[in-house]
Amino acid sequence: MSLKPAQVLLLVLVFFMDSASTGNVLVWPVDFSHWLNMKAILHELTAKGHQVTVLLPSSFQAIQFSEPPPFQLEEFHVPMSKEYVETFVEDFVRIWTYEMHELSFWEFFIKLYEIMEKIMNISKMFCDAIFLNRKLLEKLDSTGFDILISDPAVVCGELLAEKLHLPFIYSFRFSFGNTMERLCGGMPSPPSYVPASLGGLTDRMSFMERMRNMLFYFSQDIVFQQVIWKDWNKYYSDILGRPTTLCETMGKAEMWLIRTYWDFEFPRPFLPNFEFVGGLHCKPAKPLPEEMEKFVQSSGEHGIVVFSLGSMIKNLTDEKSAMVALALSQLPQKVIWRYKGKRPETLGANTRVYDWIPQNDLLGHPKTKAFITHGGTNGVYEAIYHGIPMIGIPMFADQPDNIGHMKAKGMAVELNIHTMTAKDLVDAVNTVIHNATYKENAVRISQIHHDQPVKPLDRAVFWIEFVMRHKGAKHLRVAAHDLTWYQYHSLDVIAFLIVCVALFVFIVVKCCTFCCRKCGSIRKKSKKE
Amino acid sequence: MSLKPAQVLLLVLVFFMDSASTGNVLVWPVDFSHWLNMKAILHELTAKGHQVTVLLPSSFQAIQFSEPPPFQLEEFHVPMSKEYVETFVEDFVRIWTYEMHELSFWEFFIKLYEIMEKIMNISKMFCDAIFLNRKLLEKLDSTGFDILISDPAVVCGELLAEKLHLPFIYSFRFSFGNTMERLCGGMPSPPSYVPASLGGLTDRMSFMERMRNMLFYFSQDIVFQQVIWKDWNKYYSDILGRPTTLCETMGKAEMWLIRTYWDFEFPRPFLPNFEFVGGLHCKPAKPLPEEMEKFVQSSGEHGIVVFSLGSMIKNLTDEKSAMVALALSQLPQKVIWRYKGKRPETLGANTRVYDWIPQNDLLGHPKTKAFITHGGTNGVYEAIYHGIPMIGIPMFADQPDNIGHMKAKGMAVELNIHTMTAKDLVDAVNTVIHNATYKENAVRISQIHHDQPVKPLDRAVFWIEFVMRHKGAKHLRVAAHDLTWYQYHSLDVIAFLIVCVALFVFIVVKCCTFCCRKCGSIRKKSKKE
Repeated sequence: MSLKPAQVLLLVLVFFMDSASTGNVLVWPVDFSHWLNMKAILHELTAKGHQVTVLLPSSFQAIQFSEPPPFQLEEFHVPMSKEYVETFVEDFVRIWTYEMHELSFWEFFIKLYEIMEKIMNISKMFCDAIFLNRKLLEKLDSTGFDILISDPAVVCGELLAEKLHLPFIYSFRFSFGNTMERLCGGMPSPPSYVPASLGGLTDRMSFMERMRNMLFYFSQDIVFQQVIWKDWNKYYSDILGRPTTLCETMGKAEMWLIRTYWDFEFPRPFLPNFEFVGGLHCKPAKPLPEEMEKFVQSSGEHGIVVFSLGSMIKNLTDEKSAMVALALSQLPQKVIWRYKGKRPETLGANTRVYDWIPQNDLLGHPKTKAFITHGGTNGVYEAIYHGIPMIGIPMFADQPDNIGHMKAKGMAVELNIHTMTAKDLVDAVNTVIHNATYKENAVRISQIHHDQPVKPLDRAVFWIEFVMRHKGAKHLRVAAHDLTWYQYHSLDVIAFLIVCVALFVFIVVKCCTFCCRKCGSIRKKSKKE
Repeated sequence: MSLKPAQVLLLVLVFFMDSASTGNVLVWPVDFSHWLNMKAILHELTAKGHQVTVLLPSSFQAIQFSEPPPFQLEEFHVPMSKEYVETFVEDFVRIWTYEMHELSFWEFFIKLYEIMEKIMNISKMFCDAIFLNRKLLEKLDSTGFDILISDPAVVCGELLAEKLHLPFIYSFRFSFGNTMERLCGGMPSPPSYVPASLGGLTDRMSFMERMRNMLFYFSQDIVFQQVIWKDWNKYYSDILGRPTTLCETMGKAEMWLIRTYWDFEFPRPFLPNFEFVGGLHCKPAKPLPEEMEKFVQSSGEHGIVVFSLGSMIKNLTDEKSAMVALALSQLPQKVIWRYKGKRPETLGANTRVYDWIPQNDLLGHPKTKAFITHGGTNGVYEAIYHGIPMIGIPMFADQPDNIGHMKAKGMAVELNIHTMTAKDLVDAVNTVIHNATYKENAVRISQIHHDQPVKPLDRAVFWIEFVMRHKGAKHLRVAAHDLTWYQYHSLDVIAFLIVCVALFVFIVVKCCTFCCRKCGSIRKKSKKE
């Protein structure tokens, strides 16, 4: 069958009509700080005219809309209250921050997996709430979505996409030891210079660190494949009605939009369907509220220090908060502290405490000299965006790793929440403000962030639209997905070659021995003769 | 030392002044088809106001300017005439195309390395002509260049950059078995799904193919490191006055602008300082010359076939050209054939032969149905750009590989120049025109090419400007460059772990044996007692 010119024209027309039209987007979000990032993408998608529907578990915390959002919310009931989730998260933070730091390396990870098991149980409730709700499934199926965007920090987004026969894209920060990216996404990670997430290492490792990194990868592989994912593999197979695994399903993602970039990340190998869109939520600073601006301006040439430990840390112990307040009171800078706990008595006149602060606007203010932070990815990226050096007081999850990255890039110093003294805090603030290299590095990293061919948010939206236009992005998917692990690492080939060489050597040796013997016996014979 | 606000402002101003200013670019070009690609970049750079100086060996063929180029030419004398180079290249093409195809796999590669040795000798003449010319070196040093752009198909560009203390960028198609990209650029290439250049494989390989691919990589590594690069390592060390290697120097490239993209390439892992900018020379079609347009229009609904074996094949044997002409005469399409050899007597009325054709304008013409090509990268990319299916008749260098890629992507059929008959050619043309999948795939691949966040040429220019603005792109450079090969592959760690495990097992066994003996002797003793 040949294509007539009219048919070709039609093909081209269909393509351009398609590319001009808007799409229908289904979203599988994750709560808390994860939502901030997803929200930025969804706002941009709706601004470009796409229909966006967010699947919202009834326990979701992060959405507290002062005005109706520009997207649809498809709420579904999960058998737990918002308070339950809130308490769980508070426990989670407390255990990880205050209890686990005294454990040994292995005890720490055993505790971690207990927490993860709990998270997995909660995830399972979310999944059940979707997949046992036939009415909701039918509604979603009949809506005619073009794509599903999922944050795989809570699984089942990919399962829903498979169930609805939709192409899907991930918006992702990281998995423990990059297990999902490596084992499911196919991302190559040589342990010699690619540090595992949560391992606390950089890309320049000593022999012992390289060993630690390798063992960390290895242990994660075992734990995830043999323990954590086992139940999910059965769940996914049951829902889809065919044998499959969580990892296989995840591997079908058209794109992985990773929430970092080379400003933050150590350079590493990656795949064509991985886009590093870190800092996509960052924006230029808006003017501050009048009262705050006045306070900031009153700092004179000393400028201000912005201090926040994120939305998850609401309270410090009285002792700790008094120590922190005392330290802050000794700074010549004015300090803006976001803190919901009891106001400490040692609070200095230079420090103001707020329940909530416009963090991005403060970090973008010309008077801002330093940022004291717990090291959440969103905050770190706002500091990068505005070129502000940091004092990191990491507590849990990826925070120690994030601050480790910023330390290695020379734009942060790190303090230990458990051992730091008032003097340590004062010294740290003075160091990042008065040692010019911190500001220089912050400006350099900020330039790297801003000097990209396309802004991170535009790249994220481009690839979402691309997948909608072309019904996927298969041309970016490596063939590695169709190999077994031993084929991927060429172990079968290596084994075969070793056997061949061994066989060859064996035959040569046997032949030689045979010849030698023959010669020997001939010589003996001739000697006898 | 703290930075005052005025200093920070100055820093920011310097950055923006710098980013707005234009740069001074030095170019180390490679002749023939390589130049076409480089030229497109240089034209764009000059259009953006940058000063461009091309280092031109006196034997250079590809520049025949009808009007003065928009860039400076710094000609330097090499002790060989243009005719010598022309004859060498003709020999090279003849040997590779007509003599080598009858050789066995290993004989082929021995012959290939003979050719490569010759090329290396010519390269050495180029290098000597630069590095023994102190006056030229001083002139280049005093000019104050900001960057050097090099095509490493001919070495020494990186050496010149090092000598002049300039950051440098590569514009590169490929090296044999990707040896340079892998060993010098740090590009990870799992042999299980990343086929080596010139290996003739795709990303989906059988067991035997995976073994072939692995052995191919391995043999290239040995040959390049132990044979071909040995002399260069000494040369580079002598020129720089310190021990170094060709590969180490190449590894300092800030960026590798690779002349392919995922439309053509099989998806594979890559590094942050590799940009795939294939097809950057492609442009929309311009109107054809009047006479040619008339001929094209006379084709009616059958349309036309464009036929070119590239600028390097000037003659076919009389027999071969007669066969080809006969085949073309049997097509209902009109045929436009670029051919410099003797006009065959069998030429049909539907075929016109030209010394030169506006290939891109023809491929972009709505009447064009198919492209018969030798499979050079530039031509293949023009076909991709315009979505035209191909009949590939590859002859030498990367041509078989290129056509292999296009076959695997479903937009080409392949013919063997040595064995094809007139019927084969007719059948092939009919297949790509009348089997709609070829056109559909060509349109799909073309859409992938056009649907990128930033056009290839703009991306290439962006990164060149980035390196000028920031005096490098070190944030994209993996730490792998600072590891030895055994550290990179974690062989030292693996060996250490094996020793540890072996030692542990040994101690456990010894302890057990000791205990057993002890128990045994006690039992014996007690029995005796």
